[in-house]
Amino acid sequence: MKALIVERQGELSLREIDLPLDLGPDDVKIAVHTVGICGSDVHYYTHGGIGSFRLIEPMVLGHKASGTVVDVGSRVKNRLVGNRVCMEPGVPNLSSRASKLGRYNVDPAVAFWATPPVHGILTPLIVHPAAFTYRLPSSVSFAEGAMVEPFAIGLQAAARARIVPGDVAAVIGSGPIGIMTALAAMAGGCRRVYIFDFSSEKLAIAGQYPGIYAVNAADESLVSVIEHETEGWGADIVFEASGAHKAFDAIFDIVRPGGAVVLVGLPVKPVTFDTHAAICKEVPIETVMRYANVFDRALSLIASGKVDLKPLITDTYDFADGVLAFERAASARPSDIKIQIRVSENGF
Amino acid sequence: MKALIVERQGELSLREIDLPLDLGPDDVKIAVHTVGICGSDVHYYTHGGIGSFRLIEPMVLGHKASGTVVDVGSRVKNRLVGNRVCMEPGVPNLSSRASKLGRYNVDPAVAFWATPPVHGILTPLIVHPAAFTYRLPSSVSFAEGAMVEPFAIGLQAAARARIVPGDVAAVIGSGPIGIMTALAAMAGGCRRVYIFDFSSEKLAIAGQYPGIYAVNAADESLVSVIEHETEGWGADIVFEASGAHKAFDAIFDIVRPGGAVVLVGLPVKPVTFDTHAAICKEVPIETVMRYANVFDRALSLIASGKVDLKPLITDTYDFADGVLAFERAASARPSDIKIQIRVSENGF
Amino acid sequence: MKALIVERQGELSLREIDLPLDLGPDDVKIAVHTVGICGSDVHYYTHGGIGSFRLIEPMVLGHKASGTVVDVGSRVKNRLVGNRVCMEPGVPNLSSRASKLGRYNVDPAVAFWATPPVHGILTPLIVHPAAFTYRLPSSVSFAEGAMVEPFAIGLQAAARARIVPGDVAAVIGSGPIGIMTALAAMAGGCRRVYIFDFSSEKLAIAGQYPGIYAVNAADESLVSVIEHETEGWGADIVFEASGAHKAFDAIFDIVRPGGAVVLVGLPVKPVTFDTHAAICKEVPIETVMRYANVFDRALSLIASGKVDLKPLITDTYDFADGVLAFERAASARPSDIKIQIRVSENGF
Amino acid sequence: MKALIVERQGELSLREIDLPLDLGPDDVKIAVHTVGICGSDVHYYTHGGIGSFRLIEPMVLGHKASGTVVDVGSRVKNRLVGNRVCMEPGVPNLSSRASKLGRYNVDPAVAFWATPPVHGILTPLIVHPAAFTYRLPSSVSFAEGAMVEPFAIGLQAAARARIVPGDVAAVIGSGPIGIMTALAAMAGGCRRVYIFDFSSEKLAIAGQYPGIYAVNAADESLVSVIEHETEGWGADIVFEASGAHKAFDAIFDIVRPGGAVVLVGLPVKPVTFDTHAAICKEVPIETVMRYANVFDRALSLIASGKVDLKPLITDTYDFADGVLAFERAASARPSDIKIQIRVSENGF
Repeated sequence: MKALIVERQGELSLREIDLPLDLGPDDVKIAVHTVGICGSDVHYYTHGGIGSFRLIEPMVLGHKASGTVVDVGSRVKNRLVGNRVCMEPGVPNLSSRASKLGRYNVDPAVAFWATPPVHGILTPLIVHPAAFTYRLPSSVSFAEGAMVEPFAIGLQAAARARIVPGDVAAVIGSGPIGIMTALAAMAGGCRRVYIFDFSSEKLAIAGQYPGIYAVNAADESLVSVIEHETEGWGADIVFEASGAHKAFDAIFDIVRPGGAVVLVGLPVKPVTFDTHAAICKEVPIETVMRYANVFDRALSLIASGKVDLKPLITDTYDFADGVLAFERAASARPSDIKIQIRVSENGF
Repeated sequence: MKALIVERQGELSLREIDLPLDLGPDDVKIAVHTVGICGSDVHYYTHGGIGSFRLIEPMVLGHKASGTVVDVGSRVKNRLVGNRVCMEPGVPNLSSRASKLGRYNVDPAVAFWATPPVHGILTPLIVHPAAFTYRLPSSVSFAEGAMVEPFAIGLQAAARARIVPGDVAAVIGSGPIGIMTALAAMAGGCRRVYIFDFSSEKLAIAGQYPGIYAVNAADESLVSVIEHETEGWGADIVFEASGAHKAFDAIFDIVRPGGAVVLVGLPVKPVTFDTHAAICKEVPIETVMRYANVFDRALSLIASGKVDLKPLITDTYDFADGVLAFERAASARPSDIKIQIRVSENGF
Repeated sequence: MKALIVERQGELSLREIDLPLDLGPDDVKIAVHTVGICGSDVHYYTHGGIGSFRLIEPMVLGHKASGTVVDVGSRVKNRLVGNRVCMEPGVPNLSSRASKLGRYNVDPAVAFWATPPVHGILTPLIVHPAAFTYRLPSSVSFAEGAMVEPFAIGLQAAARARIVPGDVAAVIGSGPIGIMTALAAMAGGCRRVYIFDFSSEKLAIAGQYPGIYAVNAADESLVSVIEHETEGWGADIVFEASGAHKAFDAIFDIVRPGGAVVLVGLPVKPVTFDTHAAICKEVPIETVMRYANVFDRALSLIASGKVDLKPLITDTYDFADGVLAFERAASARPSDIKIQIRVSENGF
Repeated sequence: MKALIVERQGELSLREIDLPLDLGPDDVKIAVHTVGICGSDVHYYTHGGIGSFRLIEPMVLGHKASGTVVDVGSRVKNRLVGNRVCMEPGVPNLSSRASKLGRYNVDPAVAFWATPPVHGILTPLIVHPAAFTYRLPSSVSFAEGAMVEPFAIGLQAAARARIVPGDVAAVIGSGPIGIMTALAAMAGGCRRVYIFDFSSEKLAIAGQYPGIYAVNAADESLVSVIEHETEGWGADIVFEASGAHKAFDAIFDIVRPGGAVVLVGLPVKPVTFDTHAAICKEVPIETVMRYANVFDRALSLIASGKVDLKPLITDTYDFADGVLAFERAASARPSDIKIQIRVSENGF
């Protein structure tokens, strides 16, 4: 089977590879339709690894995907051949301690697509546990289905923030994760979201959504914006979605007493933060590890029209042009949010 | 001063009455602009009391109000003469055990407007603690300001439900409280609300809002609607807003395993419910006592455009026609949601 | 294999029966050592069923058990032959929606021992998923291990109560579940528990534990005891563990404003309760469905010495006298808390 | 009136000073009995300030106190002359936004004893709002009453940790705050607490309590101790009570996936922490700002015998020897936990 493979740092190819397709009793076989390119996919290509995960052997990329069920295992009851689905890319051990607690995303045994030594799914046919596939409502396209994974991160952040209806949120960073978080916060009960960045292109994309106020941090100080808008009280929730160390300086100035800080962005190195300021406001700092139990929520928010991800799909490439798609993604144009690859036109 | 007074069961009058207007150091004096009529106001008129609260002496009615600050006490710092405000009608002892816990709504010492022996505020001038007044954003009219109180009940219900972004809710009862709850649930993170009633007029009003699906319980069974819409899983949250005993039969059939039931409606008599069904799904039953810490949230949700209460203001009467307004409210037309009385045209 | 079987209502036998012992890859085979008799086991014997669960065919009884691993499936990593364990009797579908949320106890697909059509485990050898076995610390005996299941119910109740350190709790009912709940509440952060019953024998057993105040409701009113002890404020948490309808009358009188009510007892019929009283104090009513994720906690609380269940084991019978044990349990002596059957002396 | 005063950095005196004793309607006048010396009191003496709080003028020290009511204001209902009480040293504006939310400890307007420019209470007579006094149960001595304040910090930490019954906790640092936190964690539902320090004297004091395992970090690694004790899973809660930067390195290694970290210690400078490790386990970092709504809980835990603070009172000085007491405290003997000053023998 053909697959889009990172051979080693700096080298991609679209070539034949032998991948197992054994269908277990609880699995489904899926014809992959659309795959979104993630920053982490690009990082394996440009840097040969992420943190402690290093490329040792060639690896198939891709983990944000939708497709069509083409075969079902013997015990699968809730999926049929022909079902349109999107897939949750991390598969835990369901009988582990973390999974039994409902926190399967922090199960140390999670196998996650396109994370060494696990292959990704930029290939026409894959096998996956039925329990980690989610049916696309008829109004949700394959392209939107492949957007569920990044939106799920925003939704996990919104869930961990324990939003009280009418909260004001600040989001630091207007990249894909920042925008997803802002959308999830609005859909999840915030009355207004202030999103900060230095890129006017990124802010323009975020600012097109109702309720989201895009602020260029080069022009206006976070502190003065939030102070003015909240009459000096502060934001109920601050989502850190930039991963930038500098962002941590302002966080505890803009959160209200007793508010919450949520870390969604992943800083490259350990971060220095003002513990004293956090303690004086008794602010908890929540963290977000991917997602658990939110794919179905994401899909129904999209289907209900409460969240529209279509404007965030910047461009789509054919599978044959997959390497070009990656080069485009690696070029990191500020106006690009999500680049997708259409693996199969017809769904199988 | 003139005031709208229930003299005894069945008798209202608009007449002069001597009311104290002493301005304490933490108080403001307010020129009342608009007052909404509540079901409880009507109940004192038609029944002479509510539950254990009985009319002993004539009482000024009204507790959903907006107005303009015309004087401020010596210690008041955050209100100025001329500020447009709405008022939270229950004043607790702020140093009580319940208030210190942030649950001032359940302080046994709360003094609540138009609840014997405390007068209401259907009169041109009143005095109130500044801490229980809330500034109207410039985009919020006095009429909308007087809608904050009933919406606050819906918002309290939404807050106690601990909505997770993307939840599906069912609301039983499409009266004013049911509609307020449905709006608060949508604004507070639900992706869809199913509201049930037997009155097609009431449902028509609820159903005009995006995301709210109005279902006539005379035509369709709650259970089959929710089962169909949630693929047999059930609603994440069921708000009981009818106070009808019959509603309790279906509640535990339509809530999902581990979901939540929230009682907003106030049944007249003790209610029989299926404990076994509740336990099998390990469903908590939350209750809602008026509101605490939500008036500011209500106002900003209205100002942000996320919640539009204007369609719920059915008609407005001059203060001089206040008794007519009450007769209209007492007639309980199914298409009437909220009747308001404009006490002062100019705000003072 | 021999097993203790309820043939039909009113008839027990200890006889040979053919039970499957296929060892799946994630299973362990266990030599049953000790089994505690539950009220539900007795109910199948005396009434032929419980609620909607009716005996159709003969059924092996027993679901509170400990034993020794004698074989392990091919994928089992964390259990070895010779491990002493106790077993969680309900096995959910781990890939269900409820299980993925961490609420596997409310998975509609749970198969629970000794609940038709699922056999219990009063038999020398059984097979069970390794993930639902828990290792006994060396200081915990098989007899104590067989007490984990009933204690787990109390612990689930304590967990759902969200105890704040120093809470005062009231427990209504001093039967096995009431005592387990009182112990869990004390271990779980309450500073004092008042337990109420009409049986002085049952109260004597509860009252021997430090921090637990046993009150005979025939002599003293719940309301006056709690009012006196809390200076009129009320109990932070009220656990209803009697299932008696009459108990519901007092619940909302003795809980404090903003406190919590937890239903652990299972009333036979729907219950009438004073919604108005609950709402006025904004009290949530939590419910308890068996347990999830607490067996390991129960074991370590026992091993740490914080909870001592040994005084609650009233008597122990040999397997050969299992029918006698059931007749003793069915006689419901007020001073009997838990009757156990020792299936195997040597653990295999 | 005589008072113990820090004149400037390095200079204490016991001398006459003119302090206001006006009794407001909601206040009580208190004859101070016992005052514990806090690290912050000592810091004003040795360093002339703490963080942004600097000594400008001479200031009376002391904020951990008990005494006897000798006069009550006109509106005070729940305190009588002769009541033995302890006092909560921070007085918020009860009508502020934070206070109405129940988070009065983070009200920016809090006036806190012995924090410039507010005087402390090492003087025979003081005035304080009745709402921030708490009656000592008859079994609680004045000396224990003066221990409530430091224990309240531990209790606040335990409350913010949202302990689930049976949790395992690690406490880093065995100073007064670390020990108080360990005691509160045990009383609040943990089954075992591992406390780490480099001082064998401090550890000896902590280790005398049942359930608290004292570990010398010079001899054993935190990681290996916790891994061994939890079979590799990690501690449910890690309390950082040392304020030492080095401690932050181990925190995320010893907390379990989905566990919680609570910062009780106050690091002098901003802290660098491993965001990546926190995120991978999706661990929230809670912070603790003094206390709110826990003094009554602290007192009743002491009165119930669940918590015994007497072993932590190292030595007691007469008021006349108050300067000596401070010199002793400033000498920071590792075996000293709490030094107290007895202001008045007879309670007034």
